[in-house]
Amino acid sequence: MADPRFFNNAGPFSIEQVVKLSGAKLADGKGHAGKNILHDVAPLNKATGSELSFLDNSKYIEALKTSKAGACFIEQKHVKHAPGGMLLLVTHQPYSCFARAAQAFYPSASHSPTLAKSPVAASAKIGKDCIIESGSFIGEKVEIGDNCHIGTGVVLYAGVVIGANTSIGAHSTLSHAIVGDNVIIHRSVHIGQDGFGFALGANGHIKVPQLGRVMIGNDVEIGSGTCIDRGSGPDTVIGEGTKIDNLVQIGHNVHIGKYSIIVSQVGISGSTSIGDGVMIGGQAGLAGHLKIGNGARIAAKSGVMTDIPEGVSYGGSPAVPVRDWHRQTVSVAQLAKKKGAEQ
Amino acid sequence: MADPRFFNNAGPFSIEQVVKLSGAKLADGKGHAGKNILHDVAPLNKATGSELSFLDNSKYIEALKTSKAGACFIEQKHVKHAPGGMLLLVTHQPYSCFARAAQAFYPSASHSPTLAKSPVAASAKIGKDCIIESGSFIGEKVEIGDNCHIGTGVVLYAGVVIGANTSIGAHSTLSHAIVGDNVIIHRSVHIGQDGFGFALGANGHIKVPQLGRVMIGNDVEIGSGTCIDRGSGPDTVIGEGTKIDNLVQIGHNVHIGKYSIIVSQVGISGSTSIGDGVMIGGQAGLAGHLKIGNGARIAAKSGVMTDIPEGVSYGGSPAVPVRDWHRQTVSVAQLAKKKGAEQ
Amino acid sequence: MADPRFFNNAGPFSIEQVVKLSGAKLADGKGHAGKNILHDVAPLNKATGSELSFLDNSKYIEALKTSKAGACFIEQKHVKHAPGGMLLLVTHQPYSCFARAAQAFYPSASHSPTLAKSPVAASAKIGKDCIIESGSFIGEKVEIGDNCHIGTGVVLYAGVVIGANTSIGAHSTLSHAIVGDNVIIHRSVHIGQDGFGFALGANGHIKVPQLGRVMIGNDVEIGSGTCIDRGSGPDTVIGEGTKIDNLVQIGHNVHIGKYSIIVSQVGISGSTSIGDGVMIGGQAGLAGHLKIGNGARIAAKSGVMTDIPEGVSYGGSPAVPVRDWHRQTVSVAQLAKKKGAEQ
Repeated sequence: MADPRFFNNAGPFSIEQVVKLSGAKLADGKGHAGKNILHDVAPLNKATGSELSFLDNSKYIEALKTSKAGACFIEQKHVKHAPGGMLLLVTHQPYSCFARAAQAFYPSASHSPTLAKSPVAASAKIGKDCIIESGSFIGEKVEIGDNCHIGTGVVLYAGVVIGANTSIGAHSTLSHAIVGDNVIIHRSVHIGQDGFGFALGANGHIKVPQLGRVMIGNDVEIGSGTCIDRGSGPDTVIGEGTKIDNLVQIGHNVHIGKYSIIVSQVGISGSTSIGDGVMIGGQAGLAGHLKIGNGARIAAKSGVMTDIPEGVSYGGSPAVPVRDWHRQTVSVAQLAKKKGAEQ
Repeated sequence: MADPRFFNNAGPFSIEQVVKLSGAKLADGKGHAGKNILHDVAPLNKATGSELSFLDNSKYIEALKTSKAGACFIEQKHVKHAPGGMLLLVTHQPYSCFARAAQAFYPSASHSPTLAKSPVAASAKIGKDCIIESGSFIGEKVEIGDNCHIGTGVVLYAGVVIGANTSIGAHSTLSHAIVGDNVIIHRSVHIGQDGFGFALGANGHIKVPQLGRVMIGNDVEIGSGTCIDRGSGPDTVIGEGTKIDNLVQIGHNVHIGKYSIIVSQVGISGSTSIGDGVMIGGQAGLAGHLKIGNGARIAAKSGVMTDIPEGVSYGGSPAVPVRDWHRQTVSVAQLAKKKGAEQ
Repeated sequence: MADPRFFNNAGPFSIEQVVKLSGAKLADGKGHAGKNILHDVAPLNKATGSELSFLDNSKYIEALKTSKAGACFIEQKHVKHAPGGMLLLVTHQPYSCFARAAQAFYPSASHSPTLAKSPVAASAKIGKDCIIESGSFIGEKVEIGDNCHIGTGVVLYAGVVIGANTSIGAHSTLSHAIVGDNVIIHRSVHIGQDGFGFALGANGHIKVPQLGRVMIGNDVEIGSGTCIDRGSGPDTVIGEGTKIDNLVQIGHNVHIGKYSIIVSQVGISGSTSIGDGVMIGGQAGLAGHLKIGNGARIAAKSGVMTDIPEGVSYGGSPAVPVRDWHRQTVSVAQLAKKKGAEQ
């Protein structure tokens, strides 16, 4: 369930309401009356009997088979794999239907949060010896620890939690975020906006509500211009002591371990997991859903499209172990030289 | 002609004034008295008899031959191609001269726009049920549709138009822009600043006034930290339903069609045209003046230096059809492996 | 010595205090009483007899041999190379010790600067005919020349100097910076934040105070979203007439000459030096500590890992002379084609 600190659930909805708002069709002969009130949305492996899920990719058929979801958007061809008793909402586009249903459960999740009229909301709790610069905005129920410095133009949207001794630079904005102690956030860092999540379609892309948070550990540093999207359901996590340079992009559900170093202009796509003590050179890009082991090193400008084992160095695009990358570089140079000599 | 909503034309200027401010020399024996008042600047193919143009690249000699421009900056060697009756302003540096003349016609186009003293200018029109957060600035003659949300720190410079149900995140700035309905602009998005246009010179680069706009269709979403420069004369256009991720750069005169997807940290150089339903992966870069067909797909980190036909997938840098790219990757890996085995 | 306009030196410290705060051990038999008060930190080649330095890399042993530093953090194995009379502070981690000592000398250097309560500090000097937009903040002892335009949300931290006829776009922030005349800084440009400087460690990275400035020459233009870090001790320098596009990252101690062109999303790593009239294409990345000669040209998306001689064009990643790069591209394409034909 989405953290009620940040998200308001507008449910429950009856199965009939869900049918209507999604356009899916309730399959015959499955489900029963007692289950037809749905309280929330959830992925197959986490959903309970009163929650609504979806199957969009045949990779997850096993998850479907053991899922406890009360209801599920599904294509006709997968209906046979569903456990008995699950309400099945049949459609050609399960993910689009899910997106519409999730918008109904969390109608405000895709909207810009609104601030209180006063610069510091009455319900905000601010620790001792904080400097709150003029021009900043502190939203409802924000909590700020002792000895913090909140720069001018900083916006802390409702519910954000900031630990002690943390400094947030001018014009940074945070929503849906829990931040640790001794964190340094530089200027114009944007944390907690929606991840880039859409149910794609040729005639329009449907926004999928992003229901996770951003969790930032102690002693993290984040450079100017960096963007960290909140999770789509799981959280986006930056581990203790990790240092992130300027203009870095961190997608939804990314998980970075402790004491890692992320150099400027790196981009990390959604749901990629990075271990402890990883070093990522400038302008490297990582595809989504990868696992980068502890202590791995990724050369600047690498294009990482595969998992990287613990302690191994990778380089190039597509990235390969660094020794192979150097061999490739030398081989191609020799080939080109030979070609030059032949001309 | 530049949109008077955003640009003030300080002309007309006499041909003598143009000679003086540009340093070009009026060619003998061409032109006549009736034409010597110039009302505006324009490219060769659009200029009328009272407008000033330039020829800087021999590629455009055909355009010169049929141009109706009243006057033209031109190199001596190209004078022979000019139509009779056109006033010819001869110079070694036609583009630099044009830049100086355009600065004279539009002296404020290269300056930061100035806001009214009050947060919301008296001449601004704001629709029903809008939330205008404290700390935002709404300039002269701005028009905002119904149900919009304007975040704190948002700056809408004079003349900007925002459709209905549109949300603009904290610290975003818009100038010279016409925005549609149901648009979501995230935080610190900067739209409408000058494109990167200079008449280059070894001893200094002369700024070329950027006289176009940014046109953003309905249902567009634009991620945090993204920059979209206004057109140089033509407009920069983002089509309906296109979704743009964080930290993307879109240069002047770029034209993006409908329902395209542009992932984080992509860079699109000036005057490139992108069709409908195009997918561009993260950190890809596109050179200027390209045509990317409808439904094309560009892999993450690609360096696109050529046009891409409709429906085709490209990858690599320089980007090639994706099948060729994979073959290249495999070939180079095999070559390097062989080399490794020989060692 | 760090510029007192921007940095407050909290020293001097006795050698005993330095031993205590750093955890290093004073070597026997070296040094004498008269030198045991340390007034500042400095690199080996600049330190005087009352200053504290460090040796962290055996590349600098020659610099150690001729250094006049009064005291030096050093590994036991390098003690033999130190000049007589230098106080030696022995440790396994000289750079971490130095970082801690530098933090003691400059305790506020790693903190966000704090603004005055009023939007314009009483001690600021503002020239004639300036437009200072509402919502901007001008810190203590800031100096602004005549005819400047300071946009809304601009933050000029204490001591910043701005020349005449300079324009600073909305939400840009400057600290530790001296800016020339006729400069155009677009929106949300962040200048002068800490460079990315850490003494790395498996159990935590120690922040190294960044004690330099950013020096920006006349006629420079800087695009929206660009970040320029201040120097670590030396300055970061942008030469006269250089034009920088949007979303560019410039690391600490980078030195760019005159009339260079840096296109969007380029990243320049720390301590790299770029000559006059250099052109760097979009998304190119440059490693640290390189020298790029005058008039060099770097193709878009290049990954530059070596010095580039004057006037030479480079491309590719790793970047090579552009002719070689084209040969490589052609060779690889032919190899892949052959492979395709064999299949």
